Amino acid sequence: MRETRRAMGEIIEHLQSSSKKLSSKQVNNFIKILLGARRVFVVGAGRSGLVVKAFAMRLMHLDFDVYVVGETITPSLRVGDLLIAVSGSGETDLIVQAAKIARKVGAKIIAITSYTKSSLTKISDLVVILPGRKKVARTSAFMRRELAGEYASLTPLGTLFEVTALVFLDGVIASLMVKLGRKEEELRARHATIE
Amino acid sequence: MRETRRAMGEIIEHLQSSSKKLSSKQVNNFIKILLGARRVFVVGAGRSGLVVKAFAMRLMHLDFDVYVVGETITPSLRVGDLLIAVSGSGETDLIVQAAKIARKVGAKIIAITSYTKSSLTKISDLVVILPGRKKVARTSAFMRRELAGEYASLTPLGTLFEVTALVFLDGVIASLMVKLGRKEEELRARHATIE
Amino acid sequence: MRETRRAMGEIIEHLQSSSKKLSSKQVNNFIKILLGARRVFVVGAGRSGLVVKAFAMRLMHLDFDVYVVGETITPSLRVGDLLIAVSGSGETDLIVQAAKIARKVGAKIIAITSYTKSSLTKISDLVVILPGRKKVARTSAFMRRELAGEYASLTPLGTLFEVTALVFLDGVIASLMVKLGRKEEELRARHATIE
Amino acid sequence: MRETRRAMGEIIEHLQSSSKKLSSKQVNNFIKILLGARRVFVVGAGRSGLVVKAFAMRLMHLDFDVYVVGETITPSLRVGDLLIAVSGSGETDLIVQAAKIARKVGAKIIAITSYTKSSLTKISDLVVILPGRKKVARTSAFMRRELAGEYASLTPLGTLFEVTALVFLDGVIASLMVKLGRKEEELRARHATIE
Repeated sequence: MRETRRAMGEIIEHLQSSSKKLSSKQVNNFIKILLGARRVFVVGAGRSGLVVKAFAMRLMHLDFDVYVVGETITPSLRVGDLLIAVSGSGETDLIVQAAKIARKVGAKIIAITSYTKSSLTKISDLVVILPGRKKVARTSAFMRRELAGEYASLTPLGTLFEVTALVFLDGVIASLMVKLGRKEEELRARHATIE
Repeated sequence: MRETRRAMGEIIEHLQSSSKKLSSKQVNNFIKILLGARRVFVVGAGRSGLVVKAFAMRLMHLDFDVYVVGETITPSLRVGDLLIAVSGSGETDLIVQAAKIARKVGAKIIAITSYTKSSLTKISDLVVILPGRKKVARTSAFMRRELAGEYASLTPLGTLFEVTALVFLDGVIASLMVKLGRKEEELRARHATIE
Repeated sequence: MRETRRAMGEIIEHLQSSSKKLSSKQVNNFIKILLGARRVFVVGAGRSGLVVKAFAMRLMHLDFDVYVVGETITPSLRVGDLLIAVSGSGETDLIVQAAKIARKVGAKIIAITSYTKSSLTKISDLVVILPGRKKVARTSAFMRRELAGEYASLTPLGTLFEVTALVFLDGVIASLMVKLGRKEEELRARHATIE
Repeated sequence: MRETRRAMGEIIEHLQSSSKKLSSKQVNNFIKILLGARRVFVVGAGRSGLVVKAFAMRLMHLDFDVYVVGETITPSLRVGDLLIAVSGSGETDLIVQAAKIARKVGAKIIAITSYTKSSLTKISDLVVILPGRKKVARTSAFMRRELAGEYASLTPLGTLFEVTALVFLDGVIASLMVKLGRKEEELRARHATIE
């Protein structure tokens, strides 16, 4: 239980600092492009893929024409479509490849990622930076204790990025609700009745 | 290899006899209801679920407004929608429950199934019967040899129904292409470019 | 952007208060049952389903024998298995039904939910309570302003529960890592290389 | 209805000729490698992906340690694992990329495909050829009538390959049942009880 609470604390702290570091310009552009898109496609791998699906579900509740890359009824991307790619590193093969195809057909690409410079950001129209794990100073004293397991991470791999992406995208849903004048009841009406 | 070919032979033979037994009235009604539906929802469990997804993919290629129950962007069912439920036995809990919800909201239900009388067919607007496995005469001589494994099935569980459903639904796609005047090239244009 | 940040603030505040309200007894029992389970099955609908998949992925990284209900290679539940069901209301049909089947075969059931009394909790061996949305006092003055949209929620439907469940389950992963003596590098080694 | 039956006839005819053209050597090697694999991973895109999932489900019923690339609990590929890739063209990006990663880690690769020479077959340890659509002689008379829509295909895109792959893989299941001495009842016992 002690580590459960400690890890939750680490995540909450990361969310607070991430929320403060958000670039208004990036977020406002994201919302503007979303509102102007003919159709929205989302893509992500592993847990980032689950996060972007949670976002797609809410976009559907808001009546967007939205598709998840890899699901059954997802059609071909075309000019005027928007691809939202979520990848902490910006180097996941599948995601970079999807972005390249989007580029070729003339669709817009928004990257939700942790790094300014990556294969994904290079071909994106807009990049929204969400901090992942803090880089730690790798002094030799640190390295010794790291090897001894003293600093073993309680939020392994992409955890901090993934939770931050989910909370950020839920924040974007709030902005869209206000901009579109949608009330919760209208979302509920479109919520799947058979799951 | 011998059993591979023997099982394929059993399946092909079953497809031939199933194709002959199809009811023109049932199939024509199926196509008519499909063409009149505002939106199409499909549902199936296990391998029947995979078969109905393969059908949904082609409906999307034909520009239908189609959704798979359980996928991310599937909205709530409403009046005027059509639910296509594929279930050999017509008794799979999840499927019967989905059909009940469809009934309640006033959506139409088409059952693709092997049995005329089941919980699913009872609440369906149209039933299309596809034969599953032949019932074998259970003489005591048969039972003895069955127990000895001589008649062990090479096409276990729902195999015959599932393959028949896939081939039948691909046949329905052919009828829709002709009725809608769609050429293969138009399907290809909507085929997902990122998978 | 203003609403994005405000909604993120609401979520973070909810996470903080939820983390404090966690019952040590419930969490410690959860971890103990998890460590003793032969195989773990997870189930959830909609966005709760995505959250429980994110948890299952980490359990796999920790070398648990884990399955997601509804995915291709999920076998039948048996005695000695554990079913983890995530449902804010505890009344989602699909989830309650899954729990009933688990009960029948003699598997253990853990409910992650917001309400102490529900169809799900009634048949669960252990209930872990995660607060969802705060109930607001429905004075007539409030109702008038609610209707006028002044209090329109920025975190609609199950948002608060879903994010809390994800962060809580990531906390449980931290406890499991420490109890099992697993380092991040060992998780990375099992992380899917093709996605 | 007429086209439904005609398309079903085309598919059945294709299955018959494909079954005859199967290479015993290829099929026997496929079965041998399957039986020797530590773990089996399957991958396919679009409808081929659905077909390979149907195969994976039966392998699970036969107690194989099997995973579908892209699903939640799929771990990293390692030496000694087997990747089965289903792709009519052998050129689907996602599939070729998966095969390349398998190659790098030292896993075995089996390609189920229509063409002997492709990016996929080049890096596969074993290739099983299943005929797709017949190439038609493109005389100018044919071309004129084709343009007029007289020969419009009733089995568009990958239909013939996909159905053939499903029926062939169900045939392989029959061989595995006999080789492993498994009866249908044993498969049923592992069949998912919650779907």
